[in-house]
Amino acid sequence: MTLPTGADDGRDVMAEFIPSSPLVALLGIQVGSLGDGEAVLHLPYRAELTTIGETVHGGAIATLADTAVMAACWCGAVPPENLRGSTVDLTVHYLAPASATDLTATARVLRRGRKICHAEVSVTDSSGTLVAHGVGTYQLG
Amino acid sequence: MTLPTGADDGRDVMAEFIPSSPLVALLGIQVGSLGDGEAVLHLPYRAELTTIGETVHGGAIATLADTAVMAACWCGAVPPENLRGSTVDLTVHYLAPASATDLTATARVLRRGRKICHAEVSVTDSSGTLVAHGVGTYQLG
Amino acid sequence: MTLPTGADDGRDVMAEFIPSSPLVALLGIQVGSLGDGEAVLHLPYRAELTTIGETVHGGAIATLADTAVMAACWCGAVPPENLRGSTVDLTVHYLAPASATDLTATARVLRRGRKICHAEVSVTDSSGTLVAHGVGTYQLG
Amino acid sequence: MTLPTGADDGRDVMAEFIPSSPLVALLGIQVGSLGDGEAVLHLPYRAELTTIGETVHGGAIATLADTAVMAACWCGAVPPENLRGSTVDLTVHYLAPASATDLTATARVLRRGRKICHAEVSVTDSSGTLVAHGVGTYQLG
Repeated sequence: MTLPTGADDGRDVMAEFIPSSPLVALLGIQVGSLGDGEAVLHLPYRAELTTIGETVHGGAIATLADTAVMAACWCGAVPPENLRGSTVDLTVHYLAPASATDLTATARVLRRGRKICHAEVSVTDSSGTLVAHGVGTYQLG
Repeated sequence: MTLPTGADDGRDVMAEFIPSSPLVALLGIQVGSLGDGEAVLHLPYRAELTTIGETVHGGAIATLADTAVMAACWCGAVPPENLRGSTVDLTVHYLAPASATDLTATARVLRRGRKICHAEVSVTDSSGTLVAHGVGTYQLG
Repeated sequence: MTLPTGADDGRDVMAEFIPSSPLVALLGIQVGSLGDGEAVLHLPYRAELTTIGETVHGGAIATLADTAVMAACWCGAVPPENLRGSTVDLTVHYLAPASATDLTATARVLRRGRKICHAEVSVTDSSGTLVAHGVGTYQLG
Repeated sequence: MTLPTGADDGRDVMAEFIPSSPLVALLGIQVGSLGDGEAVLHLPYRAELTTIGETVHGGAIATLADTAVMAACWCGAVPPENLRGSTVDLTVHYLAPASATDLTATARVLRRGRKICHAEVSVTDSSGTLVAHGVGTYQLG
């Protein structure tokens, strides 16, 4: 899949959109890198993100995963004139506790259809341990 | 399924635990009611929860769903001496945009095993429209 | 949701299509009833469907669930001239062993969009015990 | 993760168990290779596996994925005296039609806990195209 990478590429849209999204800003999710059908996002550890003790809440991880899936699905796609899209569904498997750690989500497109895009995402902690895995369906347009 | 409902019931644990959970407090999730294998939670609308415009971010809905699944799985179970548990996995289907609306999550246990508990959750907006459906696996102990 | 229920309704298409589908016939899945956004299918027990001993294989249950989700999504929808559609994704939670038992899948639409339809399905054994729960996304057209 | 690979390894159990499982035999699923936390299974194309035309039914793909997840979770684990286990849940994303093609499922463990094992599986057609992706939770013991 080779898609245009000019100024009107989905990556430009995402680089601007993600940090301006209120919940993303509230949690502190940051854009790492955006490639063709790929997105890397970071979530620095803060006590406000925990569920109990120093364990990051599964909901924070799901928000990170959802945002990364969306970003990967947009990156590489030519954005339509009126930017529209939404998550159709998201499945997250929690593999290990994320304890007092920054998190990195790496999402990549599994398949991009005309309207429907599937992506998977791996969430690792600061030591590189896989703490969660997600797979989602995103609808563009 | 009839389970003990005394003072050491999981509901008491949940009624105290949920509001004290930092991310839950950050988003503003509130306990509605807790029954035997059932939990109703509320998420009042705030601009900080949106993804763009007035649409609540899917991650906020996933956090609400995850918390409700956990609560339902604990409610009715006799809590072990050392409270422990974690979400194994969660699938959320997003059915309709949640636009500038308070949300209510109603979770119920599908099956409670000795260690593994499955629950489903319906998320409705203030008009009663189903905006998301979740199903999760939770591990107790 | 009120949809046409005439001769060109999706139910007529499903009543004819399901029994003629080779894998459905191989497993022995039968149509129970088809309503507006609802479908009930049966899978009579046979030793060929098991994984070990008398336990029905999770794959047979997934096939039953997938077929029921598809049927519910078509039932009530006006079929396009060229019948087309496909499962986008399916999540099945296995709740209890299905041992030497006939199975019944009851699927209902959670939300029908223009192109995307979400449905959930409950699979019960001959005693009415819930043995599996599924939720799927189906694409029409 | 380094696990014993002796005669009492889960791989030996799987190599014997999989072909003897009735539904697996009915569909024609074959063992490719079994490694430490990995399993490769094949499903040769047959007209009986289709849903319509030459398209393999999603249920056949789900059965292949479920069996591969189970196999990967057993491979590397020391089997308990009494072999027991079951799929907790399985999510399959269908990425492209599988038309008149043999299929290969490659599963690998994402994380193996004491009782709970998570694995993902990629299903490719004879040209190497990814036609489905699955992720599942399996319970040992």
